[in-house]
Amino acid sequence: MLKTIFKSNLIKTLEKVAGEENVLSSREALYVYSTDSTNIIDAEEQAQAVVFPISTQQVSEIMKYAYKKNISVIPRSAGTSVCGACLPKKGGIILDFSKMNRIIEINKDNLLCKVEPGVIVEDLQKAVEKYDLFYPPDPSNLKVSMIGGSIGLSSGGPHTFKYGSTKDFIIDLEVVLSDGTIIHTGCECSKNVTGYNLTQLFIGSEGTLGLITQAVIRLIPKPEAKKVMLAYFDTLEDTSKTVNDIISNLITPSVIDLIDKNTIQTIESFYPSGLLTDKEAALLIEIDGFMSNLDEQYQKVIEICKNNNSAYIQTAQTKEEEEKIWISRRSSFGATAKLAPNVVTEDVVVPRENIVKLVKGIRQICDKYKLKTCIMGHIGDGNIHPNIALDLRNKIEKENFLKAKAELFELAISLKGTLSGEHGIGCEKSEFISKAVEPDTLKLMKQIKKLFDPKNILNPNKIFSED
Amino acid sequence: MLKTIFKSNLIKTLEKVAGEENVLSSREALYVYSTDSTNIIDAEEQAQAVVFPISTQQVSEIMKYAYKKNISVIPRSAGTSVCGACLPKKGGIILDFSKMNRIIEINKDNLLCKVEPGVIVEDLQKAVEKYDLFYPPDPSNLKVSMIGGSIGLSSGGPHTFKYGSTKDFIIDLEVVLSDGTIIHTGCECSKNVTGYNLTQLFIGSEGTLGLITQAVIRLIPKPEAKKVMLAYFDTLEDTSKTVNDIISNLITPSVIDLIDKNTIQTIESFYPSGLLTDKEAALLIEIDGFMSNLDEQYQKVIEICKNNNSAYIQTAQTKEEEEKIWISRRSSFGATAKLAPNVVTEDVVVPRENIVKLVKGIRQICDKYKLKTCIMGHIGDGNIHPNIALDLRNKIEKENFLKAKAELFELAISLKGTLSGEHGIGCEKSEFISKAVEPDTLKLMKQIKKLFDPKNILNPNKIFSED
Repeated sequence: MLKTIFKSNLIKTLEKVAGEENVLSSREALYVYSTDSTNIIDAEEQAQAVVFPISTQQVSEIMKYAYKKNISVIPRSAGTSVCGACLPKKGGIILDFSKMNRIIEINKDNLLCKVEPGVIVEDLQKAVEKYDLFYPPDPSNLKVSMIGGSIGLSSGGPHTFKYGSTKDFIIDLEVVLSDGTIIHTGCECSKNVTGYNLTQLFIGSEGTLGLITQAVIRLIPKPEAKKVMLAYFDTLEDTSKTVNDIISNLITPSVIDLIDKNTIQTIESFYPSGLLTDKEAALLIEIDGFMSNLDEQYQKVIEICKNNNSAYIQTAQTKEEEEKIWISRRSSFGATAKLAPNVVTEDVVVPRENIVKLVKGIRQICDKYKLKTCIMGHIGDGNIHPNIALDLRNKIEKENFLKAKAELFELAISLKGTLSGEHGIGCEKSEFISKAVEPDTLKLMKQIKKLFDPKNILNPNKIFSED
Repeated sequence: MLKTIFKSNLIKTLEKVAGEENVLSSREALYVYSTDSTNIIDAEEQAQAVVFPISTQQVSEIMKYAYKKNISVIPRSAGTSVCGACLPKKGGIILDFSKMNRIIEINKDNLLCKVEPGVIVEDLQKAVEKYDLFYPPDPSNLKVSMIGGSIGLSSGGPHTFKYGSTKDFIIDLEVVLSDGTIIHTGCECSKNVTGYNLTQLFIGSEGTLGLITQAVIRLIPKPEAKKVMLAYFDTLEDTSKTVNDIISNLITPSVIDLIDKNTIQTIESFYPSGLLTDKEAALLIEIDGFMSNLDEQYQKVIEICKNNNSAYIQTAQTKEEEEKIWISRRSSFGATAKLAPNVVTEDVVVPRENIVKLVKGIRQICDKYKLKTCIMGHIGDGNIHPNIALDLRNKIEKENFLKAKAELFELAISLKGTLSGEHGIGCEKSEFISKAVEPDTLKLMKQIKKLFDPKNILNPNKIFSED
């Protein structure tokens, strides 16, 4: 009894809506939930409450209250954002969707499924695989990241080059608006030209326009077979030309990722798996399709790699070897994290013709500021992730990093690219958005934000910098 | 000299901006350009002028003037809309983009091209094919329809089932806003999560939010080989089950279209090409991919068709036979047009599990109202086009058609579908949009319209009915 006396009206209201067991307000909880996977941001601001809604109706009730009381609401699913998208920049309520985690329907005839935002991406992939269906977007944290965050940030992953990113697979959303109104943006048909495409407006909007409480996802038939290989090169130019030549030969690899020398060496230091550490770069290539055709594609890819002076090609002969290559590749972030107390991952994208210039430019910038950088990314899409290891407690290192980051974005933009391919803007890149987006376009985006969220309570200070 | 004395200020201004040779204002021109390919709408309202801009700057100048003077502007490219999207419902200026028809760039390494809105879709396909690239969206009027209209209506076509519709291929737009401001919505990277997805908001917005003056289009490597066949069935159930079974066998046909008995008979009456006229339905199936694998896919498809009691299968053995099948398929509208003075084509879409109910329901409705109907469509996508032949001068027939149309939309919506898969809403379906889109979603769409076009001068009275 005594305990409840000190509860604020906010907590009492949230408990009434979502149940006492679904509301956290201890100092520890508020501290933990006021961070996400973003390293560089000081998570100084804290939320006043964390709530785990279990239904759309509850989300709507919470938004009605927040709207009336002018309280910020920050949506969160797994909290794996690396751009600070889940940070409570103006305090408020953390709305954690991890308990809304039902796969409501998988419909093989309609090639779609219906899910709640708290479903883990890999769980979804495995669930639809049982029906011989495929959900391709695969952010490297897919074992923990959730579909709600994937939609909020339009996540990609290695398979995006052939199959598209999250935005290409969502056809209908249930959304709770800032005043608690519940809307649906599309229908269960992937072809739909009936009014404006609000579905795509919400995707990638980082919870700043509305809260996603359900999604209808388009699926595709699962490829029958796949083959994974690692091809090593002595120059970035050969690496890049190999990618162009593979595509020119009408092969669209299901994955074509770049791993640079530093990344290979770092992975190999901490998770030894037989990678060749003396090569400039490796391409992780996965081809997929029909069993009967795989070998032909494979032989052609090998020939192209050799013609471009590939120093060595490792091909996974078994499921285990394949898994091993993937584990190494996905260890790049974790391995880099062992180089220094912190690791910051960036996410720039350029048209592919500029990829070598981008990678070399990133190295130059990082050398200039004495930053250890492991570069990898989805070279097919021109999307590069420098993983930068540093000690953020060291003032000089941190300052150097901030300078490097600004130059990195300038470089990407000067190469006709932009700030983010698949991680989003959050509050980590918001100060740079005006460099990448024209003033009049930005003005329009801000007007849309104001239209959807007149009180600025939906994940405030994300995407756009504070005005 | 005498002639110019009588010119209105509007005409004089347009001539000054775009040149005298690019402005039409004769009675004949205004009559012709105040129609599009929509049959059912009485094109009673006429524009005051038709202008053919040749640059974005000119479009911007015209919009500045129109904004100042509160004059409606109706964008048009080939005028092939079948939902009245190009009709000047409130008079104004027809902005015909057909002279802005440059393919500005085709970039093989970046897998993209940059075009103006007046480029004919087939011309674009042929141009990129020279680089072994593929632009899949293929509305059946692709020999005349232009990319500007394709973007405005998010056109699809037979290849949409495997490859997606126009919306899936546009990554950046240059847009002139209602006050003449020129913006760009994206960049030359297909992966881009840098602010809101304005690109997708403009696609399918039918020129009601802004005028598209340039587009960056994503391309894919051209499939190496393809094979086309026609499989006939005695029941719609067998036809539909064949589609499901093909997909269950992990084959994604590049085309899987339905042609019903009436359509086959009508095509065969007017354009005899050896189609079997005694079968209930045919599937036009195209498979594509690598040469070495095509036969395996083909054998599997044949086997599935036979297992589902396919009465007969015709396979194109030569390029000419393939072309012949496509010509028959694309003649469905033209052939139906020979049955009566007018033909109206509709465009409903449902989740595929409801396709048989949809087709049978359409037939029932048309029988009830004594309307001759040829049904075809993209069965893979659940997207059906009933072509209804009638004499619109006959009052009773017209009234019957209007009743049938309302019931058709009700049917599609009751089957979890919607009003349009690829033709758009225009003014032909605008009175029905509130049946397909929830009130709160519609309200949001109208607020967006008001935000982008406060004076309601951009293609007014399209998508939403007059308030």
